[in-house]
Amino acid sequence: MRVRNKPWADKYIRDHEEYIVTDPQNWLGKWQTRFAKKQPLNVEVGTGKGRFIIEMAKAHPEINYIGVELQKSVIATALRIFMDAPVPNLQFVLTDGADLDEIFLKDEIGKIFLNFSDPWPKKRHAKRRLTSPGFLRTYQRVLEDDGTIEFKTDNRGLFEYSLMTMNHFPMAFEDISLDLHHSPENETNIETEYEQKFSPNGPIYKLVAQFKAE
Amino acid sequence: MRVRNKPWADKYIRDHEEYIVTDPQNWLGKWQTRFAKKQPLNVEVGTGKGRFIIEMAKAHPEINYIGVELQKSVIATALRIFMDAPVPNLQFVLTDGADLDEIFLKDEIGKIFLNFSDPWPKKRHAKRRLTSPGFLRTYQRVLEDDGTIEFKTDNRGLFEYSLMTMNHFPMAFEDISLDLHHSPENETNIETEYEQKFSPNGPIYKLVAQFKAE
Repeated sequence: MRVRNKPWADKYIRDHEEYIVTDPQNWLGKWQTRFAKKQPLNVEVGTGKGRFIIEMAKAHPEINYIGVELQKSVIATALRIFMDAPVPNLQFVLTDGADLDEIFLKDEIGKIFLNFSDPWPKKRHAKRRLTSPGFLRTYQRVLEDDGTIEFKTDNRGLFEYSLMTMNHFPMAFEDISLDLHHSPENETNIETEYEQKFSPNGPIYKLVAQFKAE
Repeated sequence: MRVRNKPWADKYIRDHEEYIVTDPQNWLGKWQTRFAKKQPLNVEVGTGKGRFIIEMAKAHPEINYIGVELQKSVIATALRIFMDAPVPNLQFVLTDGADLDEIFLKDEIGKIFLNFSDPWPKKRHAKRRLTSPGFLRTYQRVLEDDGTIEFKTDNRGLFEYSLMTMNHFPMAFEDISLDLHHSPENETNIETEYEQKFSPNGPIYKLVAQFKAE
């Protein structure tokens, strides 16, 4: 998601340092100290305006969540929405998903969520897709054994590509829906802003896949 | 596909024994003798009224094809359509797909096609689906090393199920389309009767997957 710069973002982020990290390398091995309780850690890569991760954190107080986002204006908006009713089990991190293994320890994360990430439709940009083999290797390093990825998209090409890359990695598929909003598992689905806006245009695809213990 | 009995079928099949086999066990190890040339062998399981396999045989004279079908009235119709313009690289076989490893030798087949097979939507009937683990094991035995399965369906539940079973087997995905008729590979797609009739109702899904050498 590309958005224009928001002049208030820098100050807003500085003023809410207890909920957002802009120097993630300094928190390597210390993430749990930022939460009220030490408990399992799930991460969303590309958290956007944060609706998904905020609702997840409210629905699952027994899990600590981190929402990672590359764009400052976007994460500042997520933070502002979150501050209406903050919960102690969610932190935001301004950083690139490619850096995950520089800021998290091996086996530190239980689950990674990828929601409606940029499809990068041109073949020469395939490496930038968050489900490309390079990213999968990074996720595997920071995920615990048998850690899972939950991936949603409305982009057919990106979903086809991701089924291929995860099958080849190899990862074991746990659940697949080719039309999530018309599937039984939609009862527990938490929608992102994008999902709410664009789902009338076509099916939402979802894949849950697990890394095998090495 | 369930159809009513056709009184002419028995006689028609008897009268065209050069193109159809009703005692496949007797042809074990001898299939190539039924064709004009010895060349690679591809098999469609559940060949229906035969449009797909007939067109494939015409398009690829360098490959021998066998269309397997369980229902006598259906395969008799396929045979009748084929007899309008027979080609020497196609044979029909009246038998159950589950019997494949009783009528073909290990490594005898290069590719198996599964087109719009019965979805058997009830969970207790899952074993009857042509992409269930039991069938996959049978296909693996008769397919050569790195043999492939090409699977098309318009049934979302069956396709989701098949992505799971083939991933778990494990098979390596070679190609996936979640809307074949709006994909570049549709240029070379040969449609079945069913596909022509029902594709306006929703997407056609296609998966090409390969068994790994053991």
